[in-house]
Amino acid sequence: MTTVRVAGVGLTPFGDHGDRAGRDLFAEAAAAAIDDAGIDRGAIDRLDYGNFMGALAEKQGHQAPLMAEAAGLDCPATRYEEACASAGVAVKAAVEAIRAGTADLVIAGGMERMTSLDTGAVTDALSIAADELYEVRAGMTFPSAYALMAQAYFDRFGGGREDLAHIAVKNHANAVPNEYAQYQREITVDDALDAPPVAEPLHLYDACPITDGASAIVLTSDEYAATHDLDAPVAITGVGQGGDRLALQDRDAIAETPAATAAAETAYADSGITAADIDVAEVHDCFTIAEVMALESLGIADSGEGILAARDGITTPDGDCPVNLSGGLKAKGHPVGATGGSQIAELTRLLRGDHPNSEYVANATTGVAHNAGGTVASAVVHVLEVAE
Amino acid sequence: MTTVRVAGVGLTPFGDHGDRAGRDLFAEAAAAAIDDAGIDRGAIDRLDYGNFMGALAEKQGHQAPLMAEAAGLDCPATRYEEACASAGVAVKAAVEAIRAGTADLVIAGGMERMTSLDTGAVTDALSIAADELYEVRAGMTFPSAYALMAQAYFDRFGGGREDLAHIAVKNHANAVPNEYAQYQREITVDDALDAPPVAEPLHLYDACPITDGASAIVLTSDEYAATHDLDAPVAITGVGQGGDRLALQDRDAIAETPAATAAAETAYADSGITAADIDVAEVHDCFTIAEVMALESLGIADSGEGILAARDGITTPDGDCPVNLSGGLKAKGHPVGATGGSQIAELTRLLRGDHPNSEYVANATTGVAHNAGGTVASAVVHVLEVAE
Repeated sequence: MTTVRVAGVGLTPFGDHGDRAGRDLFAEAAAAAIDDAGIDRGAIDRLDYGNFMGALAEKQGHQAPLMAEAAGLDCPATRYEEACASAGVAVKAAVEAIRAGTADLVIAGGMERMTSLDTGAVTDALSIAADELYEVRAGMTFPSAYALMAQAYFDRFGGGREDLAHIAVKNHANAVPNEYAQYQREITVDDALDAPPVAEPLHLYDACPITDGASAIVLTSDEYAATHDLDAPVAITGVGQGGDRLALQDRDAIAETPAATAAAETAYADSGITAADIDVAEVHDCFTIAEVMALESLGIADSGEGILAARDGITTPDGDCPVNLSGGLKAKGHPVGATGGSQIAELTRLLRGDHPNSEYVANATTGVAHNAGGTVASAVVHVLEVAE
Repeated sequence: MTTVRVAGVGLTPFGDHGDRAGRDLFAEAAAAAIDDAGIDRGAIDRLDYGNFMGALAEKQGHQAPLMAEAAGLDCPATRYEEACASAGVAVKAAVEAIRAGTADLVIAGGMERMTSLDTGAVTDALSIAADELYEVRAGMTFPSAYALMAQAYFDRFGGGREDLAHIAVKNHANAVPNEYAQYQREITVDDALDAPPVAEPLHLYDACPITDGASAIVLTSDEYAATHDLDAPVAITGVGQGGDRLALQDRDAIAETPAATAAAETAYADSGITAADIDVAEVHDCFTIAEVMALESLGIADSGEGILAARDGITTPDGDCPVNLSGGLKAKGHPVGATGGSQIAELTRLLRGDHPNSEYVANATTGVAHNAGGTVASAVVHVLEVAE
């Protein structure tokens, strides 16, 4: 089986793109990835594309052929929808196609337009990632769902708002030099603690923003990279996907995320790493509490100890395992269907040494991306390794 | 590489399911497929699931984990959206996963709720499969898009409404004994010609109905079928996918469907068949003219001759290559995200000999399924062969 390499990455800035069409955003990211890879777009075999709320935000379904056209591609294209993990499953499918030998050169990624809706409408649109019959009709929104998870975590393991604040502070600081980040500005613990509540115990700075953006990565086989002289030092060596009940009420426990644990176990076994090998990670911090549970599912923190990882400096840039050096969903932004591809792109830049925060991971060889859907009813984990 | 076999198939009746939730429909189809396969659902490795308009029809995205739960599965689940070809791409992904050795036992299929919307709303919902900026805003609906394609076909190759009527008559007659069909009743050529116009030259009986329904198929490897003593005489020996510009105006010609031609060429090469080998086909007749173009893309009819295939008796039950013995989308119904799986299920039943229309294909060994998205901006073709 071939090793799958990341030949190029491309991102739009994350933020408010005004009247720009989604196809325009994806075309920009794809062009950047193709340019970064130094390939001819005519050689691309397939597009694996993630999008979540296009039917609501742009009244546009059937986006895969549209995005292929926008990116100047002439190949089969498929859309994946797995809520906030849409691009994660798209990337995983691309990796599997190259491994299976059905494709040599693939573009994967995703796009989301969100600011085209007002805040109420985007909250409603996001809620379709939860169970309409048993959660949404009862009034549940995503901030309230993650608030329930945070409270359950506090009840079971301890911790509180100030611990979460350290995660927001860390991720905002990480975003400052990232030219693609929505919020390139620092906040303080007091800013976070004093911010207005969204759903207790979560306040404004515990939540990711509403974001437009696109991500694209070019993946290829070892052999194609060698024969075409592509500079692709980073490989995706492990993939894993997990699932859980959609509704929180149907789960055994809500202070942990077994779908992500299963995805991580599969990905680590696939790549042959253990959690101890991880040098850097991008995790799905749609809310600060989500980063906590992600760390525990990934094995970066033990059960009940993820809450202290930022505060204790384990996941800060100078810590043992820097997490969300991109700024994370919290400060880089979370264009839902693009996020999973953005995480891979950011990790690739970090491991290649051309990320503004690469200085913190100069000797890193192993990175992990954790992309979650809804209240982690689905999760995808990728292992990236430097493989010169 | 292993041969992928169809171990079981399951369908709900197609039609108006009233207040039933989509998850309930998919659970019914999945249970039927699991029962038909004679497997333990706990052994299933993954779910590949198609759905198109869930965000609009049920305000429900992130359906993959929801459908896994409804079907009693405990495995990763992924949703594919490729407009009317959503289940086709889901089945293709499942085949590729088994071939790659990453799964032994997979459920693939799809579900659509449509009657939950009124006719105007469902027309709007379907229109998201077209280009919102350049087609839908200009007033294009799917009947009008296919009317343009029909008129272009007539202008280029000849033919007219009466030729199309023979397709509707054939497919309605085929549906009569099919217990899953929405319309188990015959129509006449005069009925079709006298029906009210929808978008000239297409009248009421040229269009498929609005339908709820679900499909599920259990796929497995040759080795798993043998070691677990599964009765799975039909194999999927070829898969192919093609793409085109989303908007009709961006294409070189609209009287033919090159995405389907590309998908067929890939699938035939994959399986080692030629068009001359095809004994029976299920094709995507969302409108009668779509069946014509499908026959030409599949090579069942030469260019410009598909229009006469039903009238001349080539694709009728007693003809050289019976097409849409299930009743097709026209008379069996078209629950968009379920259709691609339904085609595979119907072909499997026909080739196994347990379909009410199997008598017409008693010696058939090779079937082809043609599933198209939008105005054939995407297409998936599967080749099925009896492989005892």
